[in-house]
Amino acid sequence: MMPPTRNEREIIRAIRAQSPVETGSVLKGIGDDCAVLRLDGRRLQVLTVDTLIESVHFDLGWHPPDLLGRKAAAVNLSDIAAMGGKPGFALLSLAVPPNLAAQWLDRFMSGFMEALAAAQVVLVGGDTVQSGGQLSLSVTVGGEVDEGDVLYRSGAQVGDLIWVSGPLGEAAAGLAICREGKVADDPVWQQLVKAHLDPEPEVELGPLLAESGYPHAMMDLSDGIATDLAHLCEASGVGAELVAEQLPLSEPLRAAAGRFKCAALDWALRGGEDYRLLFTAPAEATLPIENLVAERLGREIFCVGRIVEGSGVALCDGSSRRDISYQGYDHFAS
Amino acid sequence: MMPPTRNEREIIRAIRAQSPVETGSVLKGIGDDCAVLRLDGRRLQVLTVDTLIESVHFDLGWHPPDLLGRKAAAVNLSDIAAMGGKPGFALLSLAVPPNLAAQWLDRFMSGFMEALAAAQVVLVGGDTVQSGGQLSLSVTVGGEVDEGDVLYRSGAQVGDLIWVSGPLGEAAAGLAICREGKVADDPVWQQLVKAHLDPEPEVELGPLLAESGYPHAMMDLSDGIATDLAHLCEASGVGAELVAEQLPLSEPLRAAAGRFKCAALDWALRGGEDYRLLFTAPAEATLPIENLVAERLGREIFCVGRIVEGSGVALCDGSSRRDISYQGYDHFAS
Repeated sequence: MMPPTRNEREIIRAIRAQSPVETGSVLKGIGDDCAVLRLDGRRLQVLTVDTLIESVHFDLGWHPPDLLGRKAAAVNLSDIAAMGGKPGFALLSLAVPPNLAAQWLDRFMSGFMEALAAAQVVLVGGDTVQSGGQLSLSVTVGGEVDEGDVLYRSGAQVGDLIWVSGPLGEAAAGLAICREGKVADDPVWQQLVKAHLDPEPEVELGPLLAESGYPHAMMDLSDGIATDLAHLCEASGVGAELVAEQLPLSEPLRAAAGRFKCAALDWALRGGEDYRLLFTAPAEATLPIENLVAERLGREIFCVGRIVEGSGVALCDGSSRRDISYQGYDHFAS
Repeated sequence: MMPPTRNEREIIRAIRAQSPVETGSVLKGIGDDCAVLRLDGRRLQVLTVDTLIESVHFDLGWHPPDLLGRKAAAVNLSDIAAMGGKPGFALLSLAVPPNLAAQWLDRFMSGFMEALAAAQVVLVGGDTVQSGGQLSLSVTVGGEVDEGDVLYRSGAQVGDLIWVSGPLGEAAAGLAICREGKVADDPVWQQLVKAHLDPEPEVELGPLLAESGYPHAMMDLSDGIATDLAHLCEASGVGAELVAEQLPLSEPLRAAAGRFKCAALDWALRGGEDYRLLFTAPAEATLPIENLVAERLGREIFCVGRIVEGSGVALCDGSSRRDISYQGYDHFAS
């Protein structure tokens, strides 16, 4: 008998089963960070949509409207960056509850437009409807990438090293802090809270990595590396080994974990909304990539494991090795 | 003092005020049925997004899931047709309440994919999230149109005749029937109920009219002609006179109005969701357009008034003349 409800992967699989495979001008349909269409010649269009829903993805009680506007843009800009693309335009679909103040909407729009402008993205259209209850924000962003540069989830090769572009788990810790009402002047909290309220998409790093030609596969971290990397492995037909001690855990994260009496590693593996890039590249590209990112962006990137034969994501922690595939955030987990 | 909430036009105006005017590759931003971007040379991309929300736009109690799927596609295909464009791809963002049955989603997707396939549209991506309560469907559709063919709301000229592509008000009457729980075997009801549950977008007529070169301005009817035509007039800097007796009111609509003890004309003017095309064309194009539509699609179109100097929409009914601008459906009217 069919179960009455499904988890997120099952829903996407059911939808994908009804969608045709890639044909004609559709180079990539459902199943990556963006859809990829051929515009003309070697120019490809990348397209993504993400919906944020009140009480599910954000809480109006602690999320300032301008930062929510920035985040609504960021989560989509992150998807474009994950393909190696440069964003160009956005559409915004707003479902507004009847009692929402005009001032709230102005502040939201101000943050949203600010984030778009910083990425040189133009708001070209949208839709405004009244919601029966919850505020809901659906953002579509389109961009472009050269056919020679586009990076899919499916390109990882055995022997590749696995990289992330920043510390993991901070947004999850920030959410925990907001939920507990612990937002205070403590700068330790503030870095984590900012990671949750106002994530910075990798609009520069994504195209830089793609144009470098070094990475084989890339995606953004939105549901926690345990789940996101499992998607990448499934798409590439490979397995992955993460090395626990190589995962970048920031000092603020460790401090918060201490105060919350939980494991920083859990936030890093399972926490969603990192919006960092996850990519794989051959071992011999290590120095060139590290140098490129340091020289061009003044930043560090982190090698966290390697692609292996087989399937699934294993966490190597000292002498132990356990499967953590898909143990990140599931939007439909009960 | 700023009012705490606003109507739909005020919200869109506030958003538009923060958006840059058309520049570079953006030929049309906020304020038409679709955004219009230049792809290369004379090929333009048209893009639209529409969100449908449970209890606001549809009622799961009477809307069969497959027909709701068809409608979620149709309302966007209608926007593409209104620019004279041919649709090509779609993205679907689903916010699903926790208790929604898997079977419901399968039937919804089956209708959605059927409607896309009929219009030769490919589902290329999307997003699935859990909703806290209401089911919400956000659909983005993109298509193409030649620069020489694209039709905006802003092109109407004084002296143009005003046309609609089918009977008005049927969807509004169908909604009233569904609300009253009067869906029965009576074929009079069924035509109206179908207009509400399963509207047919003008995917063939839109490009046909645009390629003919006759119309000056076009849009689709989604909020009632009193409001939609007022938008077209505002965008074109003209006024309009509608002739009451020329409005196409079907026999089923008149019969339903009799039984509901209301005016069929009100449904036709104010009722939303017609998804017919509204366009203007010079008087001398009358016969060529009528013949083209009859020969190519075997259909009739209806002349309902004319574009005049000034502003606003007037209804001429016998010897009376009254302003009906923006008296259609407002998603934010209390």
